[in-house]
Amino acid sequence: MIRFADRAAFTAALSALPGPGEAAVTAARTRQAELTKPAGSLGRLEDIAVFMAGWQNTPRPRIDRVQAVVFAGNHGVAARGVSAFPVEVTEQMVANFRAGGAAINALCRSCSADLSVVPLDLERPTGDISEEAAMSEAECLAALNAGAAAVSPDTQLLFVGEMGIGNTTPASALCAAAFGGEAALWCGKGSGIDDEGVARKILAVEQALALHLPDCDDAFETLRRLGGREIAAMAGAILAARMMRIPVLLDGFIACASIAPIVARVPGFTAHCLAAHCSAEPGHVRLLGYFGLEPLLRLGMRLGEGSGAAAAVPIVRAALATHNEMATFAEAAVASGS
Amino acid sequence: MIRFADRAAFTAALSALPGPGEAAVTAARTRQAELTKPAGSLGRLEDIAVFMAGWQNTPRPRIDRVQAVVFAGNHGVAARGVSAFPVEVTEQMVANFRAGGAAINALCRSCSADLSVVPLDLERPTGDISEEAAMSEAECLAALNAGAAAVSPDTQLLFVGEMGIGNTTPASALCAAAFGGEAALWCGKGSGIDDEGVARKILAVEQALALHLPDCDDAFETLRRLGGREIAAMAGAILAARMMRIPVLLDGFIACASIAPIVARVPGFTAHCLAAHCSAEPGHVRLLGYFGLEPLLRLGMRLGEGSGAAAAVPIVRAALATHNEMATFAEAAVASGS
Repeated sequence: MIRFADRAAFTAALSALPGPGEAAVTAARTRQAELTKPAGSLGRLEDIAVFMAGWQNTPRPRIDRVQAVVFAGNHGVAARGVSAFPVEVTEQMVANFRAGGAAINALCRSCSADLSVVPLDLERPTGDISEEAAMSEAECLAALNAGAAAVSPDTQLLFVGEMGIGNTTPASALCAAAFGGEAALWCGKGSGIDDEGVARKILAVEQALALHLPDCDDAFETLRRLGGREIAAMAGAILAARMMRIPVLLDGFIACASIAPIVARVPGFTAHCLAAHCSAEPGHVRLLGYFGLEPLLRLGMRLGEGSGAAAAVPIVRAALATHNEMATFAEAAVASGS
Repeated sequence: MIRFADRAAFTAALSALPGPGEAAVTAARTRQAELTKPAGSLGRLEDIAVFMAGWQNTPRPRIDRVQAVVFAGNHGVAARGVSAFPVEVTEQMVANFRAGGAAINALCRSCSADLSVVPLDLERPTGDISEEAAMSEAECLAALNAGAAAVSPDTQLLFVGEMGIGNTTPASALCAAAFGGEAALWCGKGSGIDDEGVARKILAVEQALALHLPDCDDAFETLRRLGGREIAAMAGAILAARMMRIPVLLDGFIACASIAPIVARVPGFTAHCLAAHCSAEPGHVRLLGYFGLEPLLRLGMRLGEGSGAAAAVPIVRAALATHNEMATFAEAAVASGS
């Protein structure tokens, strides 16, 4: 299990990231060329199979064990009226996850993913980022480690999601800090606020950036000042997955924003990630552009909880089903093309 | 079971198409608004659930029984060098389907669809459309009825696919006949021909259009002259599904081209259809534009066999899982938004 002893250990991990297994990539590409289909005709399914082969370091990757983890946290900035929902909803939705009644429960059953739910100190909201740092160093480290600890080493495909009333506000701040641009460019309607709510959100992000940006020297400090517990936990889980060579399906705006401070400094960080979908939250398409990732789905989803990633799991399953189960031209005695 | 007694019966069916159940649509929309998520946050998954409710005529649609049918046919025009593969491959691939080794077998296992394979007189290719009609009236009617007969009345979601070396050529001719435009606009690389092959294909389509277009007075005659057995069978199956109110996931270019002559005359014909994906074959995006359908997936697939539709089945499953299994705000005691 991955655990970061301190801030320096987290930062050190970012400069020692393992890559995919090149021999497995080559073997998987060779197999794709021999299967009974015109070369390239399965499009991105072929690329996904090769990607999975590399990160699982085997020519025949599998996804018998798909893990989903939803982290929940509360945010001081929510008191500024940046969400359409009251803060109690974070805890109410955690109860809903545990009772099996939320979207992510239905979606994980539908895609055969094992779901775990990790609430993080819900009774202690983070600091209001427009006035102070979200977390102390110890709190941020604890959240990163909660994320890393949640990843099972035998997971064959991981996705993480979140629940946290108000958390598109810190997500927008993290994006602006990582990649620049006016706060307004990164602020959307989140769970469905009106125009005045969006204006409050933009102001909060502007104030947060004015206060913290000069001190955002590295990914840890950026997450500590502008993030949140569930956000840092997602970053910790995605980093731990990379360290264990576990491929990751990235969910929407907030999940991607959690690693924006890392990607801004380590552009190849998302090499072990597929972008599951493009959220309706307008910052997400911008962010995926900075990540250089093309989403698998564009269904206008904007729920969070890992729901977009769950919807994309069957695409990865389809890619591996064709890769592993199809006959070759030789096996099936089919003439190959000119 | 649907059966068209003659050409007139087929044409008559097109002017008596049933619609979705409006009460079921309304009830499904009401339920969506009560589920524990911000309104609209599941994007197209919500629309798909409501669509399925309408066509299954129940507020709680199900897809326990998904049916896939692959029709296979041979084409006289293939002798003109319009495909990268020899014509024997149609029959070889049918054997591969029966042995379970093709992409569609793996994908149907992956998405839990029941696959049947219907070869149509493979030993008797259709007429070369650049020189004569593809089929006689009796042959076209037999193919349409083979398609209609293949649809199980208890199917909850249907998709059809095809195998037929050379069949992007008649598909391109059908599109041009239905919606106009130069032959070149509808001709792509199919299974992977070179530029000279594309030029041969364009010429064949131009000659076919010059010969037949003046007589393409209705959908039946257009299919008979420019189509093919597996193409007419797909049209028959999709029409039969509409008559039985069975929702359909449309596969790629050739599956869509099969109904182009119908849609050109009955614009609402695809109301019971979802576009599963957008093929890499360039005519497909054009065709979906004429159909007014937004594809669920854009994965660069161009294999046929129903493969793109199979890849999209889990999206429909995800839509119904959330629709049927999520708790309402009241059930979960979650506060709803402002």
